[in-house]
Amino acid sequence: MGPAPRRTRRVQVGHLGIGGGEPVRVQAMTKTDTRDTQATLDQIRALEVAGAEIIRLALPDPESLASLARLRPHTTAPLVGDVHFDHRLAVGALEAGADKIRINPGNIPDPARLRQVVEAAKQRGVPIRIGINSGSVPMALVREYGGPNARAMVAAAVQTATLFEEWGFSSLVISLKSSSVAETIEANRLLAAQLDYPIHLGVTAAGPALQSAVRSSLALGPLLMQGIGDTVRISITGDPGREVEVAWEILRALGLRQRGPIVVSCPTCARCHHPDLPALVERISTRLAQADVSASITVAVMGCEVNGPGEAREADLGIALSKTAAHIFRQGRVIAHVPIAQAEQALLKQIEALLREKPAPPDKGP
Amino acid sequence: MGPAPRRTRRVQVGHLGIGGGEPVRVQAMTKTDTRDTQATLDQIRALEVAGAEIIRLALPDPESLASLARLRPHTTAPLVGDVHFDHRLAVGALEAGADKIRINPGNIPDPARLRQVVEAAKQRGVPIRIGINSGSVPMALVREYGGPNARAMVAAAVQTATLFEEWGFSSLVISLKSSSVAETIEANRLLAAQLDYPIHLGVTAAGPALQSAVRSSLALGPLLMQGIGDTVRISITGDPGREVEVAWEILRALGLRQRGPIVVSCPTCARCHHPDLPALVERISTRLAQADVSASITVAVMGCEVNGPGEAREADLGIALSKTAAHIFRQGRVIAHVPIAQAEQALLKQIEALLREKPAPPDKGP
Repeated sequence: MGPAPRRTRRVQVGHLGIGGGEPVRVQAMTKTDTRDTQATLDQIRALEVAGAEIIRLALPDPESLASLARLRPHTTAPLVGDVHFDHRLAVGALEAGADKIRINPGNIPDPARLRQVVEAAKQRGVPIRIGINSGSVPMALVREYGGPNARAMVAAAVQTATLFEEWGFSSLVISLKSSSVAETIEANRLLAAQLDYPIHLGVTAAGPALQSAVRSSLALGPLLMQGIGDTVRISITGDPGREVEVAWEILRALGLRQRGPIVVSCPTCARCHHPDLPALVERISTRLAQADVSASITVAVMGCEVNGPGEAREADLGIALSKTAAHIFRQGRVIAHVPIAQAEQALLKQIEALLREKPAPPDKGP
Repeated sequence: MGPAPRRTRRVQVGHLGIGGGEPVRVQAMTKTDTRDTQATLDQIRALEVAGAEIIRLALPDPESLASLARLRPHTTAPLVGDVHFDHRLAVGALEAGADKIRINPGNIPDPARLRQVVEAAKQRGVPIRIGINSGSVPMALVREYGGPNARAMVAAAVQTATLFEEWGFSSLVISLKSSSVAETIEANRLLAAQLDYPIHLGVTAAGPALQSAVRSSLALGPLLMQGIGDTVRISITGDPGREVEVAWEILRALGLRQRGPIVVSCPTCARCHHPDLPALVERISTRLAQADVSASITVAVMGCEVNGPGEAREADLGIALSKTAAHIFRQGRVIAHVPIAQAEQALLKQIEALLREKPAPPDKGP
């Protein structure tokens, strides 16, 4: 959908590419105390299972660096070290085996110190993300642009990228994050028009799951539809697995990536012929969540005859209820009518059959 | 943000206007059996408390009409009767006191029957929503356009609106709903370019809450940012209160409406200085949810010194933690430093003070 994606340079993060025609990558961040090596490794693995392709760890102190070095041999996940304030931690992250580091020029203002980080990254062939947040734009730029706004964020990114280029380093990813939807869109559009580095997208401090799902979708949607954005991270106050879930929902709904089955289900109303359709949908979703992620099928569960037959017909597998029966559709054709009490069982049987047969389509790149 | 909204005609639904410069209205739909008068009335009231401004009821049979007539005197909420298949139910809905009716020309194909509905609506001065769903586009148009796609939906709407205009009726709202994000955007953009009736937006069969929040935001965001959309309804398989919550989140995040306090909170990571920030955020949110909806304040809860001070400074009230203390900001200035163990108590105290003082800003129309 929409125009061709913006063509960016490509950077390599562990075994994965970002930008340059690669699919939009799903990132996550651990929320454990990084010094707790086992807990952090466990969360990295859980996030990988949930669908995270790149995983970031906060490295606030030397003990966290030591923990990263200890867990590094135990995972092939592309790991990003997130560093603030102290440039020595960024150099240490590279030594500990980070596949990318994220620094925030808003809190490492000294060019001599930044240069040490850049030289260390250059030596190891590891990319750097210049991560600008509206909450930590350098004060000089905040004053120049009249606030920590979109133009101030873009100026901070361009300033740092230009410095890095002068030092012969261009293995960069850039992010401009704000907690405002409008500012996120404006800043990233301005950035995409000025630089051709891959862009990491996210809304910062977006709040609890449902609120973040709304704000992140509103901000990232128009950008991704325009071809802007090479990696995404959804910020949620709560379970990091939900961050990955929302990221995939966004990419799937925009047709940019495929991953696992999709459920289409009606909101129910007085017309619904099932005594508890939400519970039925939850059970069907639970079964589908166990399917292989390569099974990109759509299953529709519809409670009445208004839009039920239409939606069920458009899905790979669908069920539409009427007063007297459940009608089961497969690839657009009715294949069975069963009593409503047997609807769930019949649908599950068809799901099993479809999952056995359905070949996995290739993942869509942008 | 964005361009001026599209100027539409205005229709009156009970005591509320839709279109013609009115704020974007939040709709909801009851999920009770409409025949159960008390349960339906209770749900109407609960939805009003949650923030629904217009409430739709499915009217699948004469018993539901009788129930609508019984509950009508007990609520001033603008009520919409949702009718399919049988035009006599639409006429009956008008007689029972509906402030608007929604019909689907995909399942009332006979013009003579449609005309009876239009004449009854004209006589009572009640508007009609022409509600097209991709799942129930008239078959002739599906064939003509090669599928139940955006162009087929627009053609169905234009065809019906033209017919109604020929009969001297133009108190119309139009909706084109699909379960696809891309199709929803395309169809409504085409529609907005062709007709100047108010548009009701929604993604149909969007699934459970988090999935629907993503799909609805992705589809409605670009339209609302462009000024397209006069009312919204979010379809969620589950609690109807969540539909209203997501609708308001969307409108607030786009700056189109204001309603109640907004929480900005960080996702937490290894840097977080609070032992359980998500639980703290939940308690703060619970308190703020009890505030009057006119209290449009923003409260930031941030776990560390990276973006914490910046986000806290931008909020009306904010708390940013450091290793040794919680720093409390009010309207951009630090007003207190307290031990982290007292952070919650201190923040709640400031919230109470702010809620007592803060004057309610006027609701922003588009």
